[in-house]
Amino acid sequence: MTIERRLKETAERVNIALDALLPKAEGPEARLTSAIRYSALDGGKRLRPFFTLEAGALFDADEAALLRAAVAIECVHTYSLIHDDLPCMDDDDLRRGRPTLHREFDEVTALLAGDALLTFAFEILADPATHRDPQMRCLLVSGLARAAGPLGMVAGQAADMAGADIGSDLIAVTRMNRLKTGCLINFAVDAGATIGVASEAERTALSRYAHDVGLAFQMVDDLLDAEGVVRDTGKAVQKDRARGKVNFVTVMGVEATRERVGMLASQAKRHLSLFGPRATTLTDAVDFIVQRRY
Amino acid sequence: MTIERRLKETAERVNIALDALLPKAEGPEARLTSAIRYSALDGGKRLRPFFTLEAGALFDADEAALLRAAVAIECVHTYSLIHDDLPCMDDDDLRRGRPTLHREFDEVTALLAGDALLTFAFEILADPATHRDPQMRCLLVSGLARAAGPLGMVAGQAADMAGADIGSDLIAVTRMNRLKTGCLINFAVDAGATIGVASEAERTALSRYAHDVGLAFQMVDDLLDAEGVVRDTGKAVQKDRARGKVNFVTVMGVEATRERVGMLASQAKRHLSLFGPRATTLTDAVDFIVQRRY
Repeated sequence: MTIERRLKETAERVNIALDALLPKAEGPEARLTSAIRYSALDGGKRLRPFFTLEAGALFDADEAALLRAAVAIECVHTYSLIHDDLPCMDDDDLRRGRPTLHREFDEVTALLAGDALLTFAFEILADPATHRDPQMRCLLVSGLARAAGPLGMVAGQAADMAGADIGSDLIAVTRMNRLKTGCLINFAVDAGATIGVASEAERTALSRYAHDVGLAFQMVDDLLDAEGVVRDTGKAVQKDRARGKVNFVTVMGVEATRERVGMLASQAKRHLSLFGPRATTLTDAVDFIVQRRY
Repeated sequence: MTIERRLKETAERVNIALDALLPKAEGPEARLTSAIRYSALDGGKRLRPFFTLEAGALFDADEAALLRAAVAIECVHTYSLIHDDLPCMDDDDLRRGRPTLHREFDEVTALLAGDALLTFAFEILADPATHRDPQMRCLLVSGLARAAGPLGMVAGQAADMAGADIGSDLIAVTRMNRLKTGCLINFAVDAGATIGVASEAERTALSRYAHDVGLAFQMVDDLLDAEGVVRDTGKAVQKDRARGKVNFVTVMGVEATRERVGMLASQAKRHLSLFGPRATTLTDAVDFIVQRRY
């Protein structure tokens, strides 16, 4: 099966699970739950869920548990996009080719839908349906909270908004991206390893893979922002420079960034060598990520 | 010990625990963690933590566990106030007698500090330091997520912002308040009962107490908004009517609201009769809540 097809199948499974799990209210709460669904079911790539499912598959982990963890992670990812798009943050009008949530609904609803999705992610993880062992559920809750919290993703969002104030060298930009997108990608992979009860060595290998893939992913994002067109990316482009934000391309330029992406991609694949051919899907995913046009 | 003194002592314990648990970063994240601390350590009444600690004390529950659960709940309460104060929501300049977080820092920092506090609450609860039994930790995570999530507190905030659109009868206003403040107060009491491994009958009694206290608390808030002065409440007053929001006073008037507060207070105390004199602090708290001027 090609990686594109595998990603598409995963995305469909995740969409079905999200649709089944997300709240659906009638009456006064209908607007809020409609807004949650507008953003959460908007046809994203579902890359983080893919990582969780594929990392877990290396250990024949329980698929229902993996899927629920994957959905929780995607809820947190969606909340972060909704809040990032708000007028006080990036003030974006487009996301995945459609109006952003605060443009389609309103700012209050977008703020609250983000809050609700973040909270709901923890409800999913702590539910006995996710895993029969409460110790495992606690590990997942802790891991997600740390990845997304004040010393993780939120710190990265704050650094991103601070722009050049955080410093405009490669170290500062790498650190910001590790926090802003790296932590959650890392947790997505780690959740699969955790549910699969991976050995220490296997977890370390997967964590290094996640680290390199996460950075490469972000560099490609920055390249697409610099070069891309709205039609391909489904969101506004060339905005980082206009906003005085620093990213890999503004710091290193296009050529050096492309080179670095290639290096990270090879390195990411090498980390998976201990899994042999079982890890083919995860290594193929690297190529997909670095070659993507959206 | 008077109830005022007991509340003050509890608030001091909660402040010390919050100060010890909340992240404190140097470097690029310092602004975010300072903002979190500005709001979380601002001298609130700590009423929700008080409920958790006192409900747990009925069952001689482990104090360290109660305190960590109480801190997590206060983090969620603080996040809800920060987001409620934002320009797109209530656009408030004052909170507890000081500038609101987005006025003291900026809107982005306030948004992110709220997000961080919400996330951090779940990190606290899932940590083994909260309770040795992971099943107990999962119960707390689930309970908090449900109380604060898309069918709980967030739904209440959405309904509150919708104002008269939700209907301006007593049923609609009661429902909105049950969600917006009642769910979290209910969970605060229930967390104490859960950690204390209360019986079904004891939990039910405490839940009814929390229901009545929560409504009475909100009615007093609405009375203070209608009659109060900024000096006493430390926040803007008489804003609900100006904003076209419905509350108990706009729906029932001052006199009927006062009468209803008295009824709920007596009823709340009666629910605790099965605990006898052990529940004196919780019954005294009812009088404090209905007589408060801030």
